[in-house]
Amino acid sequence: MHISRSLVGALLLVSLGLACLQPAWAADDALPSWQDGAAKQAIVDFVAHVTTRGGPAFVPESERIATFDNDGTLWAEQPMYIQMAFVLDRVKALAPQHPKWRDQQPFKAVLEGDLKALAASGEKGMIDLGMATHAGMTTQEFEQIVKDWLATAKHPRFNRPYTECVYQPMVELLAYLRANGFKTYIVSGGGIEFMRPWTEQVYGIPPEQVVGSTIKTTFEMRDGTPVLMRLPEIDFIDDKAGKPVGINKFIGRRPILAFGNSDGDHQMLQWTAAGSGPRFMGLVHHTDAEREWAYDRISSIGRLDEALDEALTKGWTVVDMKQDWKIIFPPSSRH
Amino acid sequence: MHISRSLVGALLLVSLGLACLQPAWAADDALPSWQDGAAKQAIVDFVAHVTTRGGPAFVPESERIATFDNDGTLWAEQPMYIQMAFVLDRVKALAPQHPKWRDQQPFKAVLEGDLKALAASGEKGMIDLGMATHAGMTTQEFEQIVKDWLATAKHPRFNRPYTECVYQPMVELLAYLRANGFKTYIVSGGGIEFMRPWTEQVYGIPPEQVVGSTIKTTFEMRDGTPVLMRLPEIDFIDDKAGKPVGINKFIGRRPILAFGNSDGDHQMLQWTAAGSGPRFMGLVHHTDAEREWAYDRISSIGRLDEALDEALTKGWTVVDMKQDWKIIFPPSSRH
Repeated sequence: MHISRSLVGALLLVSLGLACLQPAWAADDALPSWQDGAAKQAIVDFVAHVTTRGGPAFVPESERIATFDNDGTLWAEQPMYIQMAFVLDRVKALAPQHPKWRDQQPFKAVLEGDLKALAASGEKGMIDLGMATHAGMTTQEFEQIVKDWLATAKHPRFNRPYTECVYQPMVELLAYLRANGFKTYIVSGGGIEFMRPWTEQVYGIPPEQVVGSTIKTTFEMRDGTPVLMRLPEIDFIDDKAGKPVGINKFIGRRPILAFGNSDGDHQMLQWTAAGSGPRFMGLVHHTDAEREWAYDRISSIGRLDEALDEALTKGWTVVDMKQDWKIIFPPSSRH
Repeated sequence: MHISRSLVGALLLVSLGLACLQPAWAADDALPSWQDGAAKQAIVDFVAHVTTRGGPAFVPESERIATFDNDGTLWAEQPMYIQMAFVLDRVKALAPQHPKWRDQQPFKAVLEGDLKALAASGEKGMIDLGMATHAGMTTQEFEQIVKDWLATAKHPRFNRPYTECVYQPMVELLAYLRANGFKTYIVSGGGIEFMRPWTEQVYGIPPEQVVGSTIKTTFEMRDGTPVLMRLPEIDFIDDKAGKPVGINKFIGRRPILAFGNSDGDHQMLQWTAAGSGPRFMGLVHHTDAEREWAYDRISSIGRLDEALDEALTKGWTVVDMKQDWKIIFPPSSRH
């Protein structure tokens, strides 16, 4: 009797030990760019819990929805949003066709490299620039413009294509989740049609799993062929409180895992957290001025303040970029 | 030499014969409710072509996007759209909380069963009814309302739940396409949140693959819990020229197969047809007054006129419900 109880105890310890170890082994393969630590362990534990059939936290595959912000969460957003760099380059490329821009703000500021005047043009200036560069062509034409730009443009600090300024640990996380039956989505404030041309190749996320901001389009016949023309009119802003709205509209299910890096992701994380059953809320905290950037509460781009407070209070996972990531970017393929 | 050429010829004939026969065998299993005929053969041939690896018409799985209208294509739309029956029932259910409705059109017409006055209220009347029954609650509350209604409401002619007024041959077609690597979508003028609660169970189409009309929602905190409130404001109408717009916005890829039944699907079919590579455009033609309904060019619901002309001119597949379908509805499970 005594022996038997010890045996049971030993077996229990062994099996508990195995249960704890198994995800760690799996993670060693799947998340090689993550340092062993609390963040990695929280991810691995969560995935193990929701995928253990018969376990108390099991979630069927169809409900394993994971949503990721893009700018600052999957790729760099400093010194400016990459889509903003696209806008500035497009204004310069289009300027010869628009001679009036030389005297018209905010275009004048862009052409003269006058960042102060550009900033002074405010939100209206940004919208004017966005519409001038994102509308007035078909959806197919815009897709080609984005692809052409990405093929040659380079990040000013890292001197590599923007599509190689993605965070290697997050790319591994996306693949790890998919290998465990998750459907991975982008839910970004960025333009949906600025992302869709390249997200499948870079992140393994197909166009239909990209949620973002949209401008209006209209169906037209052009020389007998139907086209969708991009109109200079905002349709939907997928940011802040717009993120849960976008998730509900485009996906129609609540995520069980969400990752962001700024207050723009706060409501997405709250919406995710408010569902029943197991939940994972994660924030990428930019703490690495040497390898990338260090910024949070007072940054104009990617400000992380209220969401960080709630994360610390509620025990959401905060990834410390400097401590938790062995490398930031993937090895370059084009140098 | 002579023998050898004959042998090669014989082998070629045998393998061509097998190639032709194989899809037909597969279809015998997968589409049992379809009569052998031109429509079924066109479907089977198309699927065989796009799934033959190395063949001239091969399409990778990720691009096998198939979009289906819902009302009149996947389930019945006579004598009124099923969502309209929901609206009328909801007005009656909510009337005790709205005493003023007794004297206020179009609510008065609904409560008195005055279809003439209801029709006279026009599009504005329909929108008023829609907003009164579809807005003012959270998304979760609305989902439950839809589920509760579908659990008890019955079709007035067939006396069976609406979810059993789906077309069995089309349900088989959806499954057949998925078995061949297609991603099946609904692209409907109906409300997206009226469909999502039941499409997975009934059609095998998950919520994230349902595109439809939307009303605006707003993210709010209610007693510390985030909710999405449904606002009485139209966000997007996914009908006619709105269908390609919706496809581009929600899916971001052009379908290679699309099925509709009315002029409301015309632009979706044109948009599908205009892509490069193999395409399949299909129309369900309601020709069976005995088992369902017969209507097309002059019907107020599901009018099929211009799209039928283009289908006949361009050789799109027109399914003759009476000739092509052995049965219309699935065997009932709840009688």
